[in-house]
Amino acid sequence: MERLIIIGGGAAGMTAASWVRRLKPNMHVTVFESTKMVSHAPCGIPYFTEGLFDDENLFMTYTPEYFIEKRKINVKTNSKVEEVDLRSRIVVVRENQEKRKYEFDYLLFSTGARPKKINAEGDRIFYVHHPAEASYIRQKLWSFNRIAIIGGGILGIEMAEALRARGKKIVLIHRGRYLLNKMLDEDMGKIVTDKVESEIELKLNESLVSVIEEGRVVITDKGKYDVDATVVAIGVEPNIDLVKDQLKIGQTGAIWADNHMRTSVENVYAAGDSTESINIITKKPDWVPFAPVANKMGFVAGNNIGGKDVTFPGVVGTMITKFEEFIIGKTGVTENEAKRYNIKTVSAIVHHKTRARYYPGSKDIIVKLIAEADTMRIIGAQIVGEEEVLGRLNMMAAVIQKGFTAEDLFFVETGYVPPVNRVWDVVTLAARKLFSGISGE
Amino acid sequence: MERLIIIGGGAAGMTAASWVRRLKPNMHVTVFESTKMVSHAPCGIPYFTEGLFDDENLFMTYTPEYFIEKRKINVKTNSKVEEVDLRSRIVVVRENQEKRKYEFDYLLFSTGARPKKINAEGDRIFYVHHPAEASYIRQKLWSFNRIAIIGGGILGIEMAEALRARGKKIVLIHRGRYLLNKMLDEDMGKIVTDKVESEIELKLNESLVSVIEEGRVVITDKGKYDVDATVVAIGVEPNIDLVKDQLKIGQTGAIWADNHMRTSVENVYAAGDSTESINIITKKPDWVPFAPVANKMGFVAGNNIGGKDVTFPGVVGTMITKFEEFIIGKTGVTENEAKRYNIKTVSAIVHHKTRARYYPGSKDIIVKLIAEADTMRIIGAQIVGEEEVLGRLNMMAAVIQKGFTAEDLFFVETGYVPPVNRVWDVVTLAARKLFSGISGE
Ligand SMILES: Cc1cc2nc3c(=O)[nH]c(=O)nc-3n(C[C@H](O)[C@H](O)[C@H](O)COP(=O)(O)OP(=O)(O)OC[C@H]3O[C@@H](n4cnc5c(N)ncnc54)[C@H](O)[C@@H]3O)c2cc1C
Ligand SMILES: Cc1cc2nc3c(=O)[nH]c(=O)nc-3n(C[C@H](O)[C@H](O)[C@H](O)COP(=O)(O)OP(=O)(O)OC[C@H]3O[C@@H](n4cnc5c(N)ncnc54)[C@H](O)[C@@H]3O)c2cc1C
Repeated sequence: MERLIIIGGGAAGMTAASWVRRLKPNMHVTVFESTKMVSHAPCGIPYFTEGLFDDENLFMTYTPEYFIEKRKINVKTNSKVEEVDLRSRIVVVRENQEKRKYEFDYLLFSTGARPKKINAEGDRIFYVHHPAEASYIRQKLWSFNRIAIIGGGILGIEMAEALRARGKKIVLIHRGRYLLNKMLDEDMGKIVTDKVESEIELKLNESLVSVIEEGRVVITDKGKYDVDATVVAIGVEPNIDLVKDQLKIGQTGAIWADNHMRTSVENVYAAGDSTESINIITKKPDWVPFAPVANKMGFVAGNNIGGKDVTFPGVVGTMITKFEEFIIGKTGVTENEAKRYNIKTVSAIVHHKTRARYYPGSKDIIVKLIAEADTMRIIGAQIVGEEEVLGRLNMMAAVIQKGFTAEDLFFVETGYVPPVNRVWDVVTLAARKLFSGISGE
Repeated sequence: MERLIIIGGGAAGMTAASWVRRLKPNMHVTVFESTKMVSHAPCGIPYFTEGLFDDENLFMTYTPEYFIEKRKINVKTNSKVEEVDLRSRIVVVRENQEKRKYEFDYLLFSTGARPKKINAEGDRIFYVHHPAEASYIRQKLWSFNRIAIIGGGILGIEMAEALRARGKKIVLIHRGRYLLNKMLDEDMGKIVTDKVESEIELKLNESLVSVIEEGRVVITDKGKYDVDATVVAIGVEPNIDLVKDQLKIGQTGAIWADNHMRTSVENVYAAGDSTESINIITKKPDWVPFAPVANKMGFVAGNNIGGKDVTFPGVVGTMITKFEEFIIGKTGVTENEAKRYNIKTVSAIVHHKTRARYYPGSKDIIVKLIAEADTMRIIGAQIVGEEEVLGRLNMMAAVIQKGFTAEDLFFVETGYVPPVNRVWDVVTLAARKLFSGISGE
């Protein structure tokens, strides 16, 4: 009987496991997961911290027992893989203080990412990352009053919202000129920054120097902040130490895999945040550590290990977050990124509304579209709005993946009914502005 | 100086006028509009009837004065074109009781649609169509108690919602087995029907026989209803009597035009609800009398009259409506329609939620996707949900217009953040179900 070992029972690992099980009922599938949770979604941690729910089992789509009983997948929780030998095809696992060896025919490496650390220690310094630690961290954070958050990316903003809603006094310290500066261009990022700044103490253009006193003092190049605790949210990196000397590592620092999620070693696959991909627009290696990509890579790995022939098309870099009533999304490349790749761009921003002028409850929505100047192919979209951002963002991901031109996009037959749109959809207007320069209705 | 005459100052006419003005500053542009309103949107009438707004000027995006002063377009309201002679290139217009003749070099025919009538007269029988009549009709309807609505299509449902919200007792009489039966297949239509039936007296499978007593008695093949008034909403037809003997009429009964909105007569254009188009999926003539299509046809006509070369790509048939908290959309073909065109289909329905399990306020959303069986190309989508329907519908319009397969759609890099989605978007799951049969997360 063929044996598959999966290291890491997150989104990618459990999706792959489930598909292999369906396609090869006789394969022996074992998942080693170092925590007590599988098929979990860390994405809920900010909302758990906010107190919107209390049952930490809700982090899991399915429980380990479900996978064991219903899907006949041998899930081993609290089982950390400590060594991998790809040559002799063996992993060494620490299970309940004991070390055990397992052999495999196929291996899937889906260990995810890990938070980037700062050079400081202390029991009032927190990294928000795994749902298995969410209860502990929340209990701690709730006991403090003034909290510093280092990093104005997605996680920093989500944690700021959550902790503020708990009545905490937040100081958000960010190195960049504006928030979300890896996700948005300055024109759009400024809109988000103004909003956050109106509600939270925000320090821009400040670089961290050190955190001392166990997390109670934050020192930057511009100031010193006395707080009760520090949350560090300065980004993530692939969690691949176990195999980094045995597998080809890509330019992004994540594991290289082909479009079937095969690594450089035969029958060894990788998927999820541990793994890099190809950007569909730039055709260059890219690393998009977000849950939908992880799940789909897991789907591809699972299908291919299961004997199918499924191709992962690459990534465009879709991301979405929320701060209070603002929903903020991006897909494709920003103008900043395009510059880095020497792509000449044109762009258009349209401020619009989500409902007819006369329909109550209309909200603001702002769309920026970016096209390649030569071809007028749409290569990026940024959206900030209070409703109906998600679907438009997904639409733009589709548009970018298939290479629509601005004119193609303009002619998409959008829907209109006064309670949920204007007759000229904001995306349609932005597309038209790209090729005509004109933005009015 | 070249003279353009536009007949009908609705969405299509005014959009075209504005583009011609931009592109040919020296062309003389005259718009004849039989009512007092231009660039209006009848789409607001149900919400005006509901009492959500009172200022009937809000029906207009811009006023006639705006077009005259700011855009130098010669807009003539209360000016009904009564005759058109395409050979001698003359129109005869009734302006303030006077008849006048005008010559043209270019003509745009954008007279829209008109409601289908029943064979009955009476001052308690109402057709809801033009915003210029909305105040009158609303005042009348508000004075009644029990109102029959004939027709369970989009307009019938919107009027039922509006009048019910005003406290009226409604009886909605519909010939079909379920509501919206031209827009949805039975499986999806049933969901809407159950909802409407839970709130409104609904008579399905009943055909109108006659309306008598000035609109106070409705007789069907199954019953007799005593009411105070009757609203007839049995559909629309192209409003083209003026030129139907002088222009090629298409299979749908609307004016035939090529993809530049040129009719069969030189320099005579047509756009909007008066005009048919080609369905992108079936490649057959189709008539989609909705505002976004009318506006885009107006854009194309205006640009081409203005000397550009712009192609209208055809239609996919996007429509969207609302009943109470349900937003209901469709794009592409239904399975019913596909059958009529001898397209073999596969379909998948997924019931899902709009937010993470643990995030408050999650709503239901149900998506049906239809693919061509041979190619797995997506050719139709139907969505019923309580939020984030519009953007997903627009996405599906884009997907259908560009011929995505189910697998292409599955791999669209959708966004995920717990307050606005599940990690597997409902559309992604439906796409996957199409090719794998499996629908779970
Ligand atoms: C706080 C937070 C919020 C987020 N919010 C969003 C969001 O809103 N939207 C979004 O799309 N993405 C979000 N993400 C990213 C998303 O969670 C990841 O992209 C996704 O979880 C990646 O899935 P994965 O399976 O690759 O890795 P993970 O989900 O990280 O799973 C990897 C698993 O491997 C286990 N593991 C690691 N090493 C070993 C070992 N040696 N032995 C055994 N097990 C091991 C880990 O314990 C872990 O359970 C968020 C991430 C965080 C941390
Ligand atoms: C009640 C109602 C609700 C609707 N709701 C929606 C919706 O929610 N979403 C959506 O997408 N679509 C909706 N529609 C359809 C949408 O309004 C039409 O598709 C759109 O208005 C068509 O634009 P048009 O310019 O072709 O025609 P119209 O907007 O109908 O304009 C045609 C104009 O021509 C004028 N005219 C006609 N004959 C003459 C003549 N002989 N001389 C001078 N002028 C003339 C008319 O007075 C009219 O102003 C709705 C329609 C109605 C009636």
